[in-house]
Amino acid sequence: MTNPIALEKLSDRDKKHLWHPLTQHKTHPEMLAISHAKGALIYDEEGKDYIDGIASWYTCMYGHCHPFILERVGAQMQRLDQVVFSGFTHEPAVKLSEALIEILPENQEKLFFSDNGSTATEIGIKMALQYHFNLGRKRNVMLAFEEGFHGDTFGSMSVSGLSVYNGPFEEFFIEVERISVPTPENIEALLAQLENRLQDNNIAGFIYEPLVQGAAAMKMHDVNGLDKVLALFKKYGVITVADEVMTGFGKTGAHFASDHLATKPDIICLSKALTAGLVPMGLTTCTEEIYQAFYSDDIAKGLFHGHTYTANPLACTAALAAVDLLRSDEIQGNIQNIIQWHRDFDKEIKDHPKIAATRQLGVIYALDLNVQMERYGNLRDKLFKHFMDDGVFLRPLGNTIYILAPFVIDKSQMDRIYESIKSVLEIV
Amino acid sequence: MTNPIALEKLSDRDKKHLWHPLTQHKTHPEMLAISHAKGALIYDEEGKDYIDGIASWYTCMYGHCHPFILERVGAQMQRLDQVVFSGFTHEPAVKLSEALIEILPENQEKLFFSDNGSTATEIGIKMALQYHFNLGRKRNVMLAFEEGFHGDTFGSMSVSGLSVYNGPFEEFFIEVERISVPTPENIEALLAQLENRLQDNNIAGFIYEPLVQGAAAMKMHDVNGLDKVLALFKKYGVITVADEVMTGFGKTGAHFASDHLATKPDIICLSKALTAGLVPMGLTTCTEEIYQAFYSDDIAKGLFHGHTYTANPLACTAALAAVDLLRSDEIQGNIQNIIQWHRDFDKEIKDHPKIAATRQLGVIYALDLNVQMERYGNLRDKLFKHFMDDGVFLRPLGNTIYILAPFVIDKSQMDRIYESIKSVLEIV
Repeated sequence: MTNPIALEKLSDRDKKHLWHPLTQHKTHPEMLAISHAKGALIYDEEGKDYIDGIASWYTCMYGHCHPFILERVGAQMQRLDQVVFSGFTHEPAVKLSEALIEILPENQEKLFFSDNGSTATEIGIKMALQYHFNLGRKRNVMLAFEEGFHGDTFGSMSVSGLSVYNGPFEEFFIEVERISVPTPENIEALLAQLENRLQDNNIAGFIYEPLVQGAAAMKMHDVNGLDKVLALFKKYGVITVADEVMTGFGKTGAHFASDHLATKPDIICLSKALTAGLVPMGLTTCTEEIYQAFYSDDIAKGLFHGHTYTANPLACTAALAAVDLLRSDEIQGNIQNIIQWHRDFDKEIKDHPKIAATRQLGVIYALDLNVQMERYGNLRDKLFKHFMDDGVFLRPLGNTIYILAPFVIDKSQMDRIYESIKSVLEIV
Repeated sequence: MTNPIALEKLSDRDKKHLWHPLTQHKTHPEMLAISHAKGALIYDEEGKDYIDGIASWYTCMYGHCHPFILERVGAQMQRLDQVVFSGFTHEPAVKLSEALIEILPENQEKLFFSDNGSTATEIGIKMALQYHFNLGRKRNVMLAFEEGFHGDTFGSMSVSGLSVYNGPFEEFFIEVERISVPTPENIEALLAQLENRLQDNNIAGFIYEPLVQGAAAMKMHDVNGLDKVLALFKKYGVITVADEVMTGFGKTGAHFASDHLATKPDIICLSKALTAGLVPMGLTTCTEEIYQAFYSDDIAKGLFHGHTYTANPLACTAALAAVDLLRSDEIQGNIQNIIQWHRDFDKEIKDHPKIAATRQLGVIYALDLNVQMERYGNLRDKLFKHFMDDGVFLRPLGNTIYILAPFVIDKSQMDRIYESIKSVLEIV
């Protein structure tokens, strides 16, 4: 006997009960069903393959279903799936903490786990606010970059300047002031403006995506300017919170974007590639100075934040395997190759009349088309479809096309992405 | 050559870099290292076993490392680890949606995934607020129960009346008004007060833990009273958001606590046992009416919320296997057994002079000691240590001791818990 439901296409069954993220279902009713994935490729129900040109939102940087990661996680899940992380600890969390401390900026000393990027930044914000509170200081304003994006929960939405559709919620946001991203042109004026503002002594912290603003369409800014801004904040005791959810783990060419900067952040937020695309996890790291402000005989000075699956052993195991891969000669060699391929591609196309600007940091490459496009408009959809027809999964953000492929992508696969972008330039 | 680090105890290595949730490390420096787990038991580094009397915060309800779940997840991770859930779908999410719709209250039609209980309630709050916003109504106040707990991110903290240590953040909360939990004594006055308050037409939604307030020490309230309160909210168009993160999936004897009530919620928040303790996942479900308020030719009316690992295929696979187990004769039989064991135990001890009150709903059993205890005080720590010495992991909340063991616990294991509780009564 056959099951009539099972004969329906997954994409049709999907429509009945699933509400997808960041989706207006009336204008975008069709979801493509993905059946399996391997390395840099994802496959749909019909067997057609697509190069995962954005590593499934910058998660699967070592490729999908990496055997080394699967073997480690498969073994861990036979031993210990989950245990409360208040009062208890376990080997995957301890080993991961030791491995991360070896690669994190050297001022980072303590690790606080959670489940995604939004919670990692919420914890970063809470650490910055409570740090001052615990020291008896009245500092209640957060600073953030214009067009920054830090997540979708109320706290992380509050510090996100890039509000695509936050209308219903804006009256509930915490107190945030926005500052310009530094450029060689504005840096002196920006520093003067900030130094003036800081005289009030009510700025608790500054949250920023270092060097690359991901959701703002991979906008990049100046290392020297950011360094000066961070140094000024240090001088005035403003806690700096680097949101490296997107930039972390090799994408900028260094392990962390903060490695390019002389002034290290007090707090770093991580997720996405942390677990190599296997399962969700968030992480907020900080200096000993931050931690010491919470370490007290007064219980109320602790950070009373906790999610049930905090430091889930499977997620920690995936993350530990990912660190091993990141540090391997193979992956580090791949990163250097991709950086060079992007440079060569850039030389080839940057002067194309349809291109307004190009930019690169590490394996992140982006170009702006010199056409007006809405973030969720028809032309954007047309480009998306063109890429998919070519077997390339890229996700244009407004008029920006960007590549952030898995480190394991090979040259012929990257060339398919480059060729598809070149052919798109002929149709816009 | 031996590695000196590897010879250190895990609990000592833990202290160097790990910051644990809900923990003041100065007063509680020691974390017990758990090495493995199976069924209802967890084992420490020395091989000592403990009965997991709270199912690792109500997650591992089918027992730790259940072979049926591991087999399913192990197979899935060989096929598809992760893919963007905007524009794409996959079989584990589709199958899970179909399975959950079969067991959820019948008015629930749409499922929106996230990563934990806090994000599930944040999404529930956003749905309630934006529902009215999209319909052009100015409703911006949320109602919540006194002593409710809904999570640790800024939005979910805002609606949590049980603020253990929210001091540094309270000025940043969204607008919330608290109402009393219904009792047979207060219900008429409560309904009159609410009906009066609702005349202002500015209440957007009401978030509540149905029947059992978990973090408030398993406080239970009246089915009839709650039903009357919910019916009143329906009459005034207030969106009801049932936070079933703790109560969901069989713990109250029914699949969901809302099954005990005549008036079904508009929105349900789920997590914890959803994925059977394997990996984190959150879920917010809603009625067709809620969904339709977002379904529009106007893109801005969509719910622009999304976490990177939304509907992670491994988490969906674990959840689907968990639903199969929940509906099995074996688990349903176990639930009935545990309910009866608790009833018998209650008869035996409820009149003990050291016990102020007992209560039970489904497999949740709680008793209050008639002694004053601080939530994180010394007597609480003494009881915790007594239980652990007995090989029983229970986590007293103030002067409340509660049991919420995995459904697979056997009678001799449950008797070890009962005996340990009885022996505790001799030392308080």
